[in-house]
Amino acid sequence: MSQVIAIVSGGLDSVTLAHYYHAAGHRLHLLAFDYGQRHKKELDFARRCARRLEARIDVVDLSGVSALLKGSALTDDIPVPEGHYAAPSMAVTVVPNRNAIMLSVAYGVAVAQQADIVAAGFHAGDHPIYPDCTPAFVKAFDSMAQVANQGYALAGLHLEAPFVNITKHEIVAIGARLGVPFAETWSCYKGLARHCGKCGTCTERREAFQLAGVADPTEYEEGSASPCG
Amino acid sequence: MSQVIAIVSGGLDSVTLAHYYHAAGHRLHLLAFDYGQRHKKELDFARRCARRLEARIDVVDLSGVSALLKGSALTDDIPVPEGHYAAPSMAVTVVPNRNAIMLSVAYGVAVAQQADIVAAGFHAGDHPIYPDCTPAFVKAFDSMAQVANQGYALAGLHLEAPFVNITKHEIVAIGARLGVPFAETWSCYKGLARHCGKCGTCTERREAFQLAGVADPTEYEEGSASPCG
Repeated sequence: MSQVIAIVSGGLDSVTLAHYYHAAGHRLHLLAFDYGQRHKKELDFARRCARRLEARIDVVDLSGVSALLKGSALTDDIPVPEGHYAAPSMAVTVVPNRNAIMLSVAYGVAVAQQADIVAAGFHAGDHPIYPDCTPAFVKAFDSMAQVANQGYALAGLHLEAPFVNITKHEIVAIGARLGVPFAETWSCYKGLARHCGKCGTCTERREAFQLAGVADPTEYEEGSASPCG
Repeated sequence: MSQVIAIVSGGLDSVTLAHYYHAAGHRLHLLAFDYGQRHKKELDFARRCARRLEARIDVVDLSGVSALLKGSALTDDIPVPEGHYAAPSMAVTVVPNRNAIMLSVAYGVAVAQQADIVAAGFHAGDHPIYPDCTPAFVKAFDSMAQVANQGYALAGLHLEAPFVNITKHEIVAIGARLGVPFAETWSCYKGLARHCGKCGTCTERREAFQLAGVADPTEYEEGSASPCG
């Protein structure tokens, strides 16, 4: 049984990631990051995931860091863009070097706990906008971290991103097979009572369920049209 | 004039690093990290350095992170070891993946500010104990960060560690030429009123002044013998 340090935001991808490793019989330790998001709603869903899977979770406070990484609609007063997730307009949601920061912390925890695997839920749909979600990034980060922790990490510790070459609708299909309660995941960039249905991640979420042919249990705000009408 | 994001702890190496870039005419922005050290004394010396060089400084709160990175004498209740800095006993001072975490934050700040250089004061004396201070680490980290920020960083942004292949006494020699006020730097792992003179970094500091043939202005605790008697 391997020990897995998994980065879980409370979104669909990372919650499916946690279920994926749980189903494979690994011991899970979840890390969520408070980087001064506009809303903390997704962190609640990360905590619910941990309870459901009986996993330890730590919410790491990086709000002091994100104050220095100005310029993202996820943390600032810039309007959250609507439309498709992969569109150029979504570039305003980039938090500089965010994944390297989170993975560096996760790797440090993995070394401290002599864990076997660090896991992240990157997927192919992220690649057009976020350079720190690609296979090239995963490979470069793992190489760096192996050098950085030589002699201190458990032999064989490595980074896995099992969804890095598949799209979000394939993650939905995997999650459906694993019995992931998708209603217990949060994607929306806005912090309303229900998913707004219009922002980039909502658009991507709705599309993923449709393409996967899986019923979407998400409650969207009234008046937000489904992308297929 | 390039903009440099420099990681400065308040120690001899990093304060000399800041003076080095200042003397070369670069615009400096210092980053110090509060990672839950036993004492915050060195942070005061980082702030003094910023005032002296009229540079912006931000102290980044990572205390929530270091709580998860247990096992280091720098942050825990493990006794601080005495003796030579490069000895195997100093391995208890390793904070897992610390430099990758700090550099990831620094790189994110550099991207947000469209800076030209990220700088760190690693030196050859660190290599035996800290794998995240070596030339191989610097190269691997820079490769990773370039991939992670492609399209968002200023073209040419890169990591520099100008002291990575020289020893601490050579840093003292450089600092002496630059007029670094060495009494305004802090090395000791303990948080006493004066340097203890016995811990690993004190031993290394005293030795560096002696080997460089530079007068050591440090006030050490009485009764702590000089390494050469």
